Amino acid sequence: MSLSVRSHVESSGSRVASVDVAQTLAEQILSRKAGRAVCAGDMIVVEPDLVMGHDSLSPSIIRVMQEQLGVERVFDAGKIAIVLDHVSPASTVGTANNQNAVRRFAREQGIQLFDVGRGICHQVLVEERLARPGMLIFGSDSHSCSYGAVGAFGSGMGTTDIALIWATGKTWLRVPETIRVRVSGRFRSGVSAKDLALRICRDLTIAGATYASVEYHGLDWLPLEGRQTLASMAVEIGAKAGIVPPTGVVAERLTPPDWLQVHPDATYARTLEIDADRLEPQVARPHQVDAVCNLSEVEGTRVSTVFLGTCTNGRYEDMRAAANLLSGRRIHPEIRLMITPASSQELQRAMRDDTLNTLISAGATLTTPGCGMCMGRHQGTLGDDDVCLSTGNRNFRGRMGAPSSQIYLASPEVAAATAITGRITAPFDL
Amino acid sequence: MSLSVRSHVESSGSRVASVDVAQTLAEQILSRKAGRAVCAGDMIVVEPDLVMGHDSLSPSIIRVMQEQLGVERVFDAGKIAIVLDHVSPASTVGTANNQNAVRRFAREQGIQLFDVGRGICHQVLVEERLARPGMLIFGSDSHSCSYGAVGAFGSGMGTTDIALIWATGKTWLRVPETIRVRVSGRFRSGVSAKDLALRICRDLTIAGATYASVEYHGLDWLPLEGRQTLASMAVEIGAKAGIVPPTGVVAERLTPPDWLQVHPDATYARTLEIDADRLEPQVARPHQVDAVCNLSEVEGTRVSTVFLGTCTNGRYEDMRAAANLLSGRRIHPEIRLMITPASSQELQRAMRDDTLNTLISAGATLTTPGCGMCMGRHQGTLGDDDVCLSTGNRNFRGRMGAPSSQIYLASPEVAAATAITGRITAPFDL
Repeated sequence: MSLSVRSHVESSGSRVASVDVAQTLAEQILSRKAGRAVCAGDMIVVEPDLVMGHDSLSPSIIRVMQEQLGVERVFDAGKIAIVLDHVSPASTVGTANNQNAVRRFAREQGIQLFDVGRGICHQVLVEERLARPGMLIFGSDSHSCSYGAVGAFGSGMGTTDIALIWATGKTWLRVPETIRVRVSGRFRSGVSAKDLALRICRDLTIAGATYASVEYHGLDWLPLEGRQTLASMAVEIGAKAGIVPPTGVVAERLTPPDWLQVHPDATYARTLEIDADRLEPQVARPHQVDAVCNLSEVEGTRVSTVFLGTCTNGRYEDMRAAANLLSGRRIHPEIRLMITPASSQELQRAMRDDTLNTLISAGATLTTPGCGMCMGRHQGTLGDDDVCLSTGNRNFRGRMGAPSSQIYLASPEVAAATAITGRITAPFDL
Repeated sequence: MSLSVRSHVESSGSRVASVDVAQTLAEQILSRKAGRAVCAGDMIVVEPDLVMGHDSLSPSIIRVMQEQLGVERVFDAGKIAIVLDHVSPASTVGTANNQNAVRRFAREQGIQLFDVGRGICHQVLVEERLARPGMLIFGSDSHSCSYGAVGAFGSGMGTTDIALIWATGKTWLRVPETIRVRVSGRFRSGVSAKDLALRICRDLTIAGATYASVEYHGLDWLPLEGRQTLASMAVEIGAKAGIVPPTGVVAERLTPPDWLQVHPDATYARTLEIDADRLEPQVARPHQVDAVCNLSEVEGTRVSTVFLGTCTNGRYEDMRAAANLLSGRRIHPEIRLMITPASSQELQRAMRDDTLNTLISAGATLTTPGCGMCMGRHQGTLGDDDVCLSTGNRNFRGRMGAPSSQIYLASPEVAAATAITGRITAPFDL
């Protein structure tokens, strides 16, 4: 049952003046943090619960904080986590030096650091239960909206903004409007949360949720990994955050606070209805994430590389879905299938049963847990005219390597089917 | 029982004039290939049985063959193998383009290609039984002496020499003198083939076997992986080849030709005697492979990185030895332990039992099978002032990254003990 602002503000013993307004999940979380009942459009100063930095930006965050702001120590080491995942492990002397500098900083400041190979920041913080329902989390990564998978308000910020939080413990933001995505039915076999995420990109477009918070309703049955897939892609439609109500498996795992409940009378800027039953496999064509079509429209397109990984689709269940299709088969001789587990724990899960063994026996190449080839910085960088079908979240021109390469985005099931034939293939067609 | 040249030349029905000279293993193999009985110092033209190219040099080998020599097709695609292992997988658009060019070439020419992730060339060719006893094998890699582990004459060559073989099927060489290493006894616990290899470097020095073939006697009991460790490091003392007589497990696995036998009266330029029973853990200090000392002399030296991998020590048994020490323990919080399996098969072996799980649970970072960080080109490149204890074969200044970094070479057992304490540590001391 959902609560009005009045009841939850009173029960918390907060100093906030109570108002009886039905709030969205974003408004509920931001009200707690602002110390008053807020609604979309309000400007607020907040103290986040957790601030994440990764190897790609932390060196400059540290420089801005210490050299430009003149602040030597972070506001609260216990509220910061650093994950070395973007170039994991270092591929140049430069990245090695940057990572060493971040390691030294974390040690000096007493900040918890997850070193290369532990996994992608968004996966690690969920695994370690550092990200929890109702939290306000900022990260130096655009996909920090991923924490919405556990009912947190997660959002990405750049170097300067994160440096200001590390220095002061505070930041400001405008409370976002909320767009509701209401899902009915369930996926049929061969269709998964990635197809839903891509369908949302198709329907809302890359600018359709600019600065909004997206709430995903009707998904109480969705496992954690599907929620992570969905929430991670909120930023691809321009959203500030993307929150799956912490029901079902998340409620069982993480005991959400009582005050965090979907309110039937909350104000939504827009509602998108999607019938999961009727969803077909979706593919985003180069070079834009909302250039999404039904797979049938691009079926048969030749690829040179298939990439299974990223914060969007690099978990055990994604590898398992691929292994189910690849069991007893070989990948096409002219393609590479790159597998990058989202974390060392997901890697270990895939080792424990036959999942990873099946993938490697089929010809897959395993890489170090982390962001892998998602940004083209190593671990399978694309060359000129390479065509990649990726389970990732972005297909911008040149993102994974050469500007002339092409990236199609799809689900792990489509990735596996495509790896077998060497052409974009629906999983049912095997 | 060993045979004289007369008997084996006659039994082979060769056109060679028979002479009754006791030959070294190198002389035996090169006589077969030269079509006449040869001895150290002879200049010969030979047709190798197998020629290996990897991703690092194959692009230039192809260019020299096709553009400078004007030869479009290789002499015999069935005698060539290409392995993409040096930057596996590609870490830049440049390496990706080079690898794509090599893939196209292999496809056009019908050459067997082992793509990124399959493993290190020297491991793959042994696993695939392409390298066999009595063969003459050249490779575009200095550690091609590794094929001596299965009783082949293996040697490394540069771009132009390999291009000439790919074009003509032939090459020339001077028959090398042979240095005999006679090992008595067996390793005690915590000591392994790597300590023997380093001891040989210490005793013979980096120039001590220049252009010689090294024969390792007294090791009929040594498993294949130990022979690979030993043979791979022959080049570090300047040797042209390093051959372990194909006895024991190698004889069982690969049925050596009858004519290939150690001859008691063969002429050796020098004999080195080593008592394995009394061997202590050896460590090569920066920046030279023969700067070898007993571990006790460098015990306690702080390291920032431990690397378990390479054609010298990246096999299942190496990972198992490390896992035995790391089981139930964690690596030191200030170091990284990088694990790069020598091949996908070795990776799968380590996944099948608890080996890899133990290593990852202890905090190790797994990377893609291949050469890994051995040449500093990716997968854990060393930064300024990093100190690495590596199970690899070379510790030249800057080899693994920053010129100011330092590399110590040691066994997998020492690597594991060092990973636990963060300082160079003997395996017995835990």
